[in-house]
Amino acid sequence: MKTIPYKIYLEESEMPDKWYNVRADMKKKPAPILDPGTLKPVSLAQLSAIFCEELARQELDDTTAYFPIPEEIRNFYRMYRPSPLVRAYCLEEHLKTPAHIYYKFEGNNTSGSHKLNSAIAQAYYAKKQGLRGVTTETGAGQWGTALSMACAYFDLDCQVYMVKCSYEQKPFRREVMRTYGAKVTPSPSMETEVGRRINAEFPGTTGSLGCAISEAVEAAVTQEGYRYVLGSVLSQVLLHQSIIGLETKAALDKYGIKADMIIGCAGGGSNLGGLISPFAGEMLRGTAEYEIVAVEPASCPSLTRGRYAYDFCDTGKVCPLSKMYTLGCGFIPSANHAGGLRYHGMSSVVSELYDQGLLTARSVEQTEVFEAATRFARIEGILPAPESSHAIKVAMDEAVRCRETGEEKNIVFGLTGTGYFDMVAYQKYNDGEMQDHVPSDEELEKSFAQLPKVL
Amino acid sequence: MKTIPYKIYLEESEMPDKWYNVRADMKKKPAPILDPGTLKPVSLAQLSAIFCEELARQELDDTTAYFPIPEEIRNFYRMYRPSPLVRAYCLEEHLKTPAHIYYKFEGNNTSGSHKLNSAIAQAYYAKKQGLRGVTTETGAGQWGTALSMACAYFDLDCQVYMVKCSYEQKPFRREVMRTYGAKVTPSPSMETEVGRRINAEFPGTTGSLGCAISEAVEAAVTQEGYRYVLGSVLSQVLLHQSIIGLETKAALDKYGIKADMIIGCAGGGSNLGGLISPFAGEMLRGTAEYEIVAVEPASCPSLTRGRYAYDFCDTGKVCPLSKMYTLGCGFIPSANHAGGLRYHGMSSVVSELYDQGLLTARSVEQTEVFEAATRFARIEGILPAPESSHAIKVAMDEAVRCRETGEEKNIVFGLTGTGYFDMVAYQKYNDGEMQDHVPSDEELEKSFAQLPKVL
Repeated sequence: MKTIPYKIYLEESEMPDKWYNVRADMKKKPAPILDPGTLKPVSLAQLSAIFCEELARQELDDTTAYFPIPEEIRNFYRMYRPSPLVRAYCLEEHLKTPAHIYYKFEGNNTSGSHKLNSAIAQAYYAKKQGLRGVTTETGAGQWGTALSMACAYFDLDCQVYMVKCSYEQKPFRREVMRTYGAKVTPSPSMETEVGRRINAEFPGTTGSLGCAISEAVEAAVTQEGYRYVLGSVLSQVLLHQSIIGLETKAALDKYGIKADMIIGCAGGGSNLGGLISPFAGEMLRGTAEYEIVAVEPASCPSLTRGRYAYDFCDTGKVCPLSKMYTLGCGFIPSANHAGGLRYHGMSSVVSELYDQGLLTARSVEQTEVFEAATRFARIEGILPAPESSHAIKVAMDEAVRCRETGEEKNIVFGLTGTGYFDMVAYQKYNDGEMQDHVPSDEELEKSFAQLPKVL
Repeated sequence: MKTIPYKIYLEESEMPDKWYNVRADMKKKPAPILDPGTLKPVSLAQLSAIFCEELARQELDDTTAYFPIPEEIRNFYRMYRPSPLVRAYCLEEHLKTPAHIYYKFEGNNTSGSHKLNSAIAQAYYAKKQGLRGVTTETGAGQWGTALSMACAYFDLDCQVYMVKCSYEQKPFRREVMRTYGAKVTPSPSMETEVGRRINAEFPGTTGSLGCAISEAVEAAVTQEGYRYVLGSVLSQVLLHQSIIGLETKAALDKYGIKADMIIGCAGGGSNLGGLISPFAGEMLRGTAEYEIVAVEPASCPSLTRGRYAYDFCDTGKVCPLSKMYTLGCGFIPSANHAGGLRYHGMSSVVSELYDQGLLTARSVEQTEVFEAATRFARIEGILPAPESSHAIKVAMDEAVRCRETGEEKNIVFGLTGTGYFDMVAYQKYNDGEMQDHVPSDEELEKSFAQLPKVL
């Protein structure tokens, strides 16, 4: 057997040239997205009014297994991909575990996360359609940064509505986006109908992701040559993110390694869905077995405590309905929640795979997540994003369990990004001021009661 | 000829296992460092009171060409090295140049720069000597971050004196260091004799690098089991940083590429010296010719406008004297200087090579540097550190010149790090508020007049 290096890099020529659409291998497909007015499945024409046509087509296609990655996108990928699959030798030694730990590291690019994989695809299709620009919203700023980079590359206008409190608290994220030429507007703004309405109704509000989505959608449909783009949740995003899982599998195969457990953090599902797609595909086709674990924050537990139901994709209720594990579109995680992964629902693909039992889910509290993050940083050298650290926490727990049982398990987890722009949260942890919050059953019941009535 | 990929990664097995000491191949050696009291060369015993013994030995050894890299350090290197040599295909296309542009990218680690290469070596030797910890100073914070990471890995105490204005303006850098377990003290502090003296003399002062060095040195010599470490200027640092040049040369050789021009930014000389060492070595041995260019800020032009003379290595005049190109140890770049590379002098090795005519130097102004940085970020995807962008500026200028002359030159430059913690400077540029400053001849003459009188 070949010696396994610290970092397995595929050759650029080994980089996947197709994305994989796991829906094609699902016998029971994710439920279609619905028009909230008619409760009928949204048509390609309807969707193309909001999204680029090709992206709308990808969104609705649940039978084509492979989509060729256009050469222009592959050229961009080559600037930061293939990303390394890292063997965590130092962490293994530190934990004295017989388990082998691997992580797919997506943080080695300026956006600092895996979001760039889909941003460049969405920008490409917008450019190809001859559009002038795209609009989007951003909370923490990872997606906004990735999209700014992608738009700069294809010379597209990029308009980002950034939740006002983030805009003010994360001036550096905002500045990175501006450096890439994006127009960043604090939301709610006075530039859209809905923004003006919300500002009038709630003077002094610092905004919410739901409100920013509503503004970005309005900006897209009211400007000639613009479309709206979104960085998670959607099936098209999972399709693009499948590059993570395909590379991971290729790297493991190259060294004859069979993963036993695959762990990913779960917010809207973009990273998790991308990482697990090819592995879940094998399970669906009956050619292999894996233990797949989704890790979510205890303060926003859509898989572990949510309902599998149709719900709005956004808090502002302007988007279509999607069947997913959800806490209710009005659910907002506690203000002390620092660790990302704040979305109320979950990708319909991940939700359906979870419902079919192909993956399990665990929730973890943020202080233990930051404790794992800090240990990981000191041992493996990489300062992880709070989101990614949810997966780290469970991977470390599993490795410790293997120490007790003696199992030589191959544990693979997704390290989605770096925490360089999350130092306010780290500071809270370093100062011992971080607190946990778990929503009460009553709180969740109240939120579930608002779910739209769909048969 | 093999197709050159976007990123040339050496195998981990191809990573150099020795550092190269360019002084061994210099017929005329850099002048020895002197004790400022006796004006005699500093002895190993004297130096070992401040530095770890092995590091003091490396500092004084100008005849041994290769130093084996200890296995423990190579294991740490494997977590982020070999670093990629990137072919800037997108930039070439954008500039429509027949030149081939390559950059050695040292930013893919949490410290965000090449500083980690020496930090881990210095921490290792401190650990091996059985020390409890090390002290250092940091200005912008790159070195402090790198040292914190290295000390966390070897479980050493790390005490960083951070210039007070940086401590307050760069809370995120400070927080990364704290996350790695370092004790970060704003300088001048009330914890050292010299700090208390300066605070009494200049109430409300926001500190300087010179003052922070003085505090760190005092802290090292007054605590049992501590030594002082430094991230640039020293010959030991250049030795460790030779890994950059050795990898660069190995990657070029692997694809049969002969570099024509090698460009590095120059502050204290740690990156430049490391990058050029093996190439300068060939020139010294007469086996190859290269055009080597050092790029420095016009606001701190030690090579292009400094004197080659003995000077104090620090503003506080507690360190030994070194013969180097210097602006005078009292020289402080204009307050509006945002782009790093603020050191008054230059590594004695780089200074001597420059004096022997092995390299040329150019100075550039910061607005043109940020203009190049922003273009580079949009085209190549990487948001560069302001320091690194000095090299980018000259590489782009050269590529444009090649477009005019038709030369198919191979241009190699060092991309030392990322700019994620420099967004205040980028913001200034984005807002059109950045200004240039070039010191007047009178200003420099006044500073030169303070040079110590050494024959």
